Amino acid sequence: MYIKNEDTIFAPATIPGTGAISVIRISGAAALSIADKVVTCVHGTISDAPGYSLKFGTVKAADGSLLDEVVVSIYRAPRSYTGEDSVELSCHASSYIVNAISDLLREAGARFAEPGEFTERAFLNGKMDLAQAEAVADVIASQNAAAHRVAFNQMKGGFSKELKSMRDELLKIVSLMELELDFSEEDVEFADRSELHRLLDEIIAHNSRLIDSFRLGNAIKNGIPTAIAGATNTGKSTLLNALLGEDRAIVSDVHGTTRDTIEETLNIDGILFRFIDTAGIRETSETVEKIGIEKTYQKMHQASIVLGMLDLTRDLEELKESLDCILGQVDMEEQELFLLLNKADLAGACECDGSICASGCSCGPDGDKTITTINYIGSILDVRGIGADKVRIIPISAKNGNGLDVLRKELALSQKDKLGDGSMTLVTNQRHLDALKAANTSLARVKQALEDNIPTDLAAQDLREAIYHLGSIVGEISTDEVLGNIFKNFCIGK
Amino acid sequence: MYIKNEDTIFAPATIPGTGAISVIRISGAAALSIADKVVTCVHGTISDAPGYSLKFGTVKAADGSLLDEVVVSIYRAPRSYTGEDSVELSCHASSYIVNAISDLLREAGARFAEPGEFTERAFLNGKMDLAQAEAVADVIASQNAAAHRVAFNQMKGGFSKELKSMRDELLKIVSLMELELDFSEEDVEFADRSELHRLLDEIIAHNSRLIDSFRLGNAIKNGIPTAIAGATNTGKSTLLNALLGEDRAIVSDVHGTTRDTIEETLNIDGILFRFIDTAGIRETSETVEKIGIEKTYQKMHQASIVLGMLDLTRDLEELKESLDCILGQVDMEEQELFLLLNKADLAGACECDGSICASGCSCGPDGDKTITTINYIGSILDVRGIGADKVRIIPISAKNGNGLDVLRKELALSQKDKLGDGSMTLVTNQRHLDALKAANTSLARVKQALEDNIPTDLAAQDLREAIYHLGSIVGEISTDEVLGNIFKNFCIGK
Repeated sequence: MYIKNEDTIFAPATIPGTGAISVIRISGAAALSIADKVVTCVHGTISDAPGYSLKFGTVKAADGSLLDEVVVSIYRAPRSYTGEDSVELSCHASSYIVNAISDLLREAGARFAEPGEFTERAFLNGKMDLAQAEAVADVIASQNAAAHRVAFNQMKGGFSKELKSMRDELLKIVSLMELELDFSEEDVEFADRSELHRLLDEIIAHNSRLIDSFRLGNAIKNGIPTAIAGATNTGKSTLLNALLGEDRAIVSDVHGTTRDTIEETLNIDGILFRFIDTAGIRETSETVEKIGIEKTYQKMHQASIVLGMLDLTRDLEELKESLDCILGQVDMEEQELFLLLNKADLAGACECDGSICASGCSCGPDGDKTITTINYIGSILDVRGIGADKVRIIPISAKNGNGLDVLRKELALSQKDKLGDGSMTLVTNQRHLDALKAANTSLARVKQALEDNIPTDLAAQDLREAIYHLGSIVGEISTDEVLGNIFKNFCIGK
Repeated sequence: MYIKNEDTIFAPATIPGTGAISVIRISGAAALSIADKVVTCVHGTISDAPGYSLKFGTVKAADGSLLDEVVVSIYRAPRSYTGEDSVELSCHASSYIVNAISDLLREAGARFAEPGEFTERAFLNGKMDLAQAEAVADVIASQNAAAHRVAFNQMKGGFSKELKSMRDELLKIVSLMELELDFSEEDVEFADRSELHRLLDEIIAHNSRLIDSFRLGNAIKNGIPTAIAGATNTGKSTLLNALLGEDRAIVSDVHGTTRDTIEETLNIDGILFRFIDTAGIRETSETVEKIGIEKTYQKMHQASIVLGMLDLTRDLEELKESLDCILGQVDMEEQELFLLLNKADLAGACECDGSICASGCSCGPDGDKTITTINYIGSILDVRGIGADKVRIIPISAKNGNGLDVLRKELALSQKDKLGDGSMTLVTNQRHLDALKAANTSLARVKQALEDNIPTDLAAQDLREAIYHLGSIVGEISTDEVLGNIFKNFCIGK
């Protein structure tokens, strides 16, 4: 019979390609004896070596010729990543050698590991809970300080701890309720109802905060969605290219050049932004372009930040039309709006870098299109009841790079407060979000039941459901299917 | 003062990218104490740990937050790759983490290693000679059994041993000569001249064999150059694509589609072939195409194997013209010629797979274009005095894949004998070839001097030169410039 978790598994833990060394990881009850079949050590055997030691040895090919010299790292259960006996072979980073050693390991009785199988075993052997195991993949994928901090905190059990404290509180409530239930014939209310309400409210609030953190957590993980939007030919693609420092989007003078939305992430000051270049907004009868503009609206609604592009070289009436169009798509309560006055280099702006001038420099406002436009925009915002503090207006030249430093600084600044100091738990995983939402639905029913004086046993049932949902996040309850879905997205060797 | 080899150096030994773990290597006198500054171990310090042991620890970012958990491998001089104190840190395979740890190591006093600097130190510390050090890069780059065997043999000192025995012999001769020199006033000939001649001849022959092995050694390392040549539109690019199993070359019915030569390597039965698709040969006034055809001739001359493509659907006169053209460019003594009769599927070939039919199957020759053509080609070769055993004729259909298995088998077979059993040393390095040639030039002068009875001191000088050249291969004598040129082509971290 095939008992998946009793096999000894192996896989390269480093990707093949040019490098100095490759590491092949082996884990399972027979890891040490299988390694002994493949590696001949200079002194003694791997099976006899203590945990946390290194050995030097040689690997021979099937025909007896020398294949490679390897360093063997030996880990003994439970002091290993998986909690099982494990071995790591460091060999020369040649895909030929890695493949040949893999063949030898297969012959010696090991099986090639499935994606994430080492981490799955770490979970099954109690080395980490499911939320921590899931964070391992996020730690590896994290490419900036903020994402790394969120993932690492989760891997080290920060999120799990919060969940545990909530579940402990809920278990307290449920036991109080069950006590009451045992004595229900005597119509006694043991549990202090007001205390129960307070506890429930607290837990629901905590849970809701975690649910709300998903938008930010997800933004940190995948990049804060930042839509570049505006009329056609205002320089949106030029801005994207300038920010990325490469020619990512096709740029031309033709109105409506960009049709597909283009997304690229950029690390600014340790924060990952996902810039979305959208199709320019204008009246068009062209079907493909129309679809593009529909998509622009959609992307604007999904974004956390909208960079509204205005062309300083156009007349004020055209500008107002563009601005109205942008304002119509932005939710000022939920989203951040930047208005970028592009083509400042062509608009007869003063000699200062534009941003200074915008805050009033000595070059004076007379005849300065930038200043005139800023004032004009201010009056439009005023009429709409949008406070000046709500919108950042930055004159830029996407073409020659003026004002981009200011834009980058302001973008990072706008997110710094929201990210906090990293001590707050952020939910980044859709599975966790779904479980938290399900838990809150159950808790809302409990609250309602208590208010309506519905029999305690029904409320207790809902409470147990909430506990179940919270428990599913850390894997207290899990099925093979759930585990399969989680670990299939891991890389081989982890 | 900057003393390059006294720094402690570090570099990632695995390439960044998706994977489970990354390894960062540190080497130098301060490796252990620098690692202690960056890693906090659970038990004790790295500096106190014995060699060949592992420790578990955590790395904190500059702001005090946890950056990662790492496993530390500790090596103490001289039992390490470089011969110095060394440490390897295994961390999660995130480029963010690797970069952050690199910054911490830099702050702690380590310097980012230059390409190949770890191996250069291994050479400078006497862990390996220069020829062995150079083979390390070849071992990593080797992608097939033959190349791996040649490189690994050199890394393990096989080539160095042969060189040493030659140098020892030469030193014996030179000491005999110098003895003679000391007593020259007395006109005594101590050295047995005939024995000297015999020894010299032996060494020159050995050296020549090594020089001759370069063509094969180089072919094994970079792929055996196999030119696909023939008239336009005979299916050369289709054959390349079929062999590679992908659409590498542009294929069309237009004569002269391929202009640039396209090179791709393919591993057949453990042997690396470098297939070169060339421009079709025909009379043309088109300048670009003319250059392409010139290049075809050049590539045909450089190839070890020429696959001459003939189109079975053309009439015999055309075929003869094509064949003459191919035979005119092939050196039957030095090169292997395969004649591929392509488009067998269109030529009304019999139902057997074509290859059988070629060796005479029961389907009979009547009206079979393939058989007719093979017989016709046989008569042309006969007239030119080329034996039937010299040329392999294989009917194929590049389009539907018929006959390609036979071609692959015959290609591998044609090289098997030449490759030998891997015990023979093959020279694969241009620097070594140059040194061997220089040594042989000096030795030829010694031989001439002995024959001409030229004073022994001049001959001894030439002998010392030959010894110098052979010594330069293993690095007995080397300059910073030589070392710089060798190691700059290594990868970072090796």
